[in-house]
Amino acid sequence: MRRSMVPARLAAAALLCLSITAHAADGPKPATSAAAKPAPTSADVLAAASATDWRQPDPENLLYMDLAQGRVIIELAPAFAPAHVDNIRKLVREGWFDGLAVDRVQDNYVTQWGDADNSRTPKTAQTKLAPEFVVRGAAVAKLPFTPLPDKDNYAPETGFADGFPAARDLKGQQAWLVHCYGMVGVGRDMALDSGSGAELYAVIGQAPRHLDRNITVVGRVLRGMEILSSLPRGKAAMGFYDKPEDRIPITQVRLAADLPADQRENLVVLRTDTPTWAAYVEARRNRREEFFPVPAGHIDVCNMPLPVRTMESAQAKPLR
Amino acid sequence: MRRSMVPARLAAAALLCLSITAHAADGPKPATSAAAKPAPTSADVLAAASATDWRQPDPENLLYMDLAQGRVIIELAPAFAPAHVDNIRKLVREGWFDGLAVDRVQDNYVTQWGDADNSRTPKTAQTKLAPEFVVRGAAVAKLPFTPLPDKDNYAPETGFADGFPAARDLKGQQAWLVHCYGMVGVGRDMALDSGSGAELYAVIGQAPRHLDRNITVVGRVLRGMEILSSLPRGKAAMGFYDKPEDRIPITQVRLAADLPADQRENLVVLRTDTPTWAAYVEARRNRREEFFPVPAGHIDVCNMPLPVRTMESAQAKPLR
Repeated sequence: MRRSMVPARLAAAALLCLSITAHAADGPKPATSAAAKPAPTSADVLAAASATDWRQPDPENLLYMDLAQGRVIIELAPAFAPAHVDNIRKLVREGWFDGLAVDRVQDNYVTQWGDADNSRTPKTAQTKLAPEFVVRGAAVAKLPFTPLPDKDNYAPETGFADGFPAARDLKGQQAWLVHCYGMVGVGRDMALDSGSGAELYAVIGQAPRHLDRNITVVGRVLRGMEILSSLPRGKAAMGFYDKPEDRIPITQVRLAADLPADQRENLVVLRTDTPTWAAYVEARRNRREEFFPVPAGHIDVCNMPLPVRTMESAQAKPLR
Repeated sequence: MRRSMVPARLAAAALLCLSITAHAADGPKPATSAAAKPAPTSADVLAAASATDWRQPDPENLLYMDLAQGRVIIELAPAFAPAHVDNIRKLVREGWFDGLAVDRVQDNYVTQWGDADNSRTPKTAQTKLAPEFVVRGAAVAKLPFTPLPDKDNYAPETGFADGFPAARDLKGQQAWLVHCYGMVGVGRDMALDSGSGAELYAVIGQAPRHLDRNITVVGRVLRGMEILSSLPRGKAAMGFYDKPEDRIPITQVRLAADLPADQRENLVVLRTDTPTWAAYVEARRNRREEFFPVPAGHIDVCNMPLPVRTMESAQAKPLR
């Protein structure tokens, strides 16, 4: 009996079509008019991407969090949360996270880490900070922002800001990072200024968009999400580990900038402000592979994966 | 130094407010007009629910899938996929899944199980079936359906059909189950009729709504999602386990109806066609707890959890 590979085949089918030069069709139901050239799949788009379609993240914005399970790499977003990113760098540089632990894994929600026992006091970093839930005012129009072609129901507009899923309200002059899978936020107590970056979480489930504009979001996981998402769920309320010995120790967290060049991971990330990105979005909006009788004609900001590769495999030239 | 519990506090805050009788406010920004009575939180709504707000699923629709990691309970949806549900019952009754395995776990996508080695042939069940991607025609208007108050971008309308997240297009006379976290679908090959239920998957990541109407969806996980979502990710392409010994064996799958009453789990599920449900939806659309300066004013169909309890804790009378 055959092996039903699907939805495996959904991804495999991405290998069927042709080249990026065939990219066309912006209508919502191009499948009906797909006559001559097949439109490229997302795999085609990536295969045809050139070195300049990829960017190398600033090592000042890259955290390496090492667990026994492997390395998690986080890119920080100082354009959206400059004070928190600055404070997180200070925390990392004073060794704040080293020997602390993942203390909470709540299914379909978040994995959280920090100082579960309130055992430490930071030496150089702040313990509370004014919230950076949104960017406001004239700064909003200056942020990089590539809108998605489709509507969003939680925000007037969604898109990508230098690789980060984001939303903006140009009329209201606000912009913010959105809580998609893999986004990293700052734990806080009830007081809006009670977060500092000393306790962080990553989204491991369906996008909890109700958190948007209520918490400072500081970045996203570039690599290693499968480590954070497959940890045992905590059995206490809200996914906390009920026994301290169940916690997942953090060996260390380092800033890439603080490591010698030969110890840095050479990751590159697909730019989100290029024609290649636009083609990639379109290939995700309407899967035209044989597998799909009904293309969606829509893409949610949290359904756009951010391609990340090693520099060699992307043949990218470092941009910095 | 304090312990930043949040987003823990997001859930904890659900314990703050008052009673369900205070439920009001349908506007998008009730926080601004929340003057007299605080609106109930989702915890308040559930605490105030009566026995008749809960339903006991039909044992003919309940699968118990036992792994060494624990039991996964799936509720089937014959209203949307009658032939596939019938075939899955046949497969289960002939012991099809017993001794097979979870062979694929792709991060932020699906956990899939079945006969990875094509080693078996069903005795009583069909090996292929006409697709049941959508319900069509006059049957659509007869399906149970409680719409959500908010728009959806993938479908003209979304809501809940006897507890299952669903979409419909009344004009086009179509209805279908949507791919939210925890939904269970039927693996198939390229041919639309190549699925039979012999290979199934559960969504473990951000809702892959592009699969809607392209695959037969047969049910949802009621309990045990944290088992399927925290399994080690497969390292081969598309999350398949590269070594057979890494697969997660399935001890057995049984239909609740085939077990003596004292061996059945007595779960009840919140009805989705009651005023209590409407209040629960509203409490999720606009979190009014102190924690949230900005209520979302919107809920996505895949962000509505389906409360499941044991009958005792819900004090529910069996409905069947």
